Amino acid sequence: MTELEDLVVRLREFAAVREWDQFHTPKNLAMALAGEVGELLAELQWLTPEEAERVMHDPEAAARVRSELADVTIYLTRLADVLGVDLIAAAHVKLDEGERRYDAATYRGSIRKAPPIT
Amino acid sequence: MTELEDLVVRLREFAAVREWDQFHTPKNLAMALAGEVGELLAELQWLTPEEAERVMHDPEAAARVRSELADVTIYLTRLADVLGVDLIAAAHVKLDEGERRYDAATYRGSIRKAPPIT
Amino acid sequence: MTELEDLVVRLREFAAVREWDQFHTPKNLAMALAGEVGELLAELQWLTPEEAERVMHDPEAAARVRSELADVTIYLTRLADVLGVDLIAAAHVKLDEGERRYDAATYRGSIRKAPPIT
Amino acid sequence: MTELEDLVVRLREFAAVREWDQFHTPKNLAMALAGEVGELLAELQWLTPEEAERVMHDPEAAARVRSELADVTIYLTRLADVLGVDLIAAAHVKLDEGERRYDAATYRGSIRKAPPIT
Repeated sequence: MTELEDLVVRLREFAAVREWDQFHTPKNLAMALAGEVGELLAELQWLTPEEAERVMHDPEAAARVRSELADVTIYLTRLADVLGVDLIAAAHVKLDEGERRYDAATYRGSIRKAPPIT
Repeated sequence: MTELEDLVVRLREFAAVREWDQFHTPKNLAMALAGEVGELLAELQWLTPEEAERVMHDPEAAARVRSELADVTIYLTRLADVLGVDLIAAAHVKLDEGERRYDAATYRGSIRKAPPIT
Repeated sequence: MTELEDLVVRLREFAAVREWDQFHTPKNLAMALAGEVGELLAELQWLTPEEAERVMHDPEAAARVRSELADVTIYLTRLADVLGVDLIAAAHVKLDEGERRYDAATYRGSIRKAPPIT
Repeated sequence: MTELEDLVVRLREFAAVREWDQFHTPKNLAMALAGEVGELLAELQWLTPEEAERVMHDPEAAARVRSELADVTIYLTRLADVLGVDLIAAAHVKLDEGERRYDAATYRGSIRKAPPIT
């Protein structure tokens, strides 16, 4: 098992022993994911770009950011498991597409002109 | 290298060859992450809970959901790399906490009473 | 002044006396808006659809939902003011479009087939 | 009727003639709101702070931002109506609290130290 599969299995068991599968529906988990991303944004929202670059240098802020990133990871992993999606494989498929679409010469230094893939 | 590290490295190179590191600041990537989560929610928002449970049975909807999950994974992975956070390790730390806090006997079948960890 | 303009002015003064205009940039306010929407989702995420319909019958949950809706309103209003956008007028323009696009006969009872306006 | 009530009524009718009330549940509307906020973030995410300050000077970008702000307003207004919440009144209650909590002398020029109201 890879390390991500390990996490998937641990989350599955965490939910099962608490009989939380009934709450872990696709819609509920997607909402929980968005909620955690909101908490992550809240950690960064009032920082200047420069302060945000250094946020991990402050131990307390770093712990909060790490904790929010963990929550996002947990709900994303759990949602993907419930839907039967392999996140890493899906990401590589998307990057294959991205590499064809955003050829380096055309898009060098210019992210904003790039039309969305989806 | 684990499979997640592989993805981290591929994303790093994807950004480097396009000179997109300048755009990949913590705040910008957090916004992009939230944007992609929004697109994921949009795929599920009007479905009934039952329809959402079966969303992956419809090939076209499944492809869209997989694509949005991929985008969320990509920006989450990239943001964590820029911040120097190991997502899997952070998730396990959070789950250690969760296991202490939400003991199975007390919280069985009842997710809503659980006070938030963070 | 309409009641929304009243709120706009109060928010402007609230920020001015605290010298918070420096933080109220478009990107920061958009992040704060997303953060508050995340907190709103968190109030509803584990409820069944039926429980969510009745959420305002529980005084404590109702107070939390009202508070989160207020926060969303505050940041949306403030962001629109900073950008110089009249939210109500913009919403009516969008609805004019929506009425043309989603003619009642075609889309009756079927929200999911409707192609997005934007 | 105030202008916001006008919008509430128009949205109610828009949904009624299309028989969309069945889709306009609190959870679905909250998801739609988050989805639209995600689209708004996407308009700003790769801009520098300075570019974002000037985003309304570019007619095409301005039209997109205005359109996303309109969508956010529409779903927020509709969700509040379904829940029976007066957004403007709720925002003023929250601001009463904010004025007591963040006294101008203590928090002048320093948004980040402020503990959250909720």
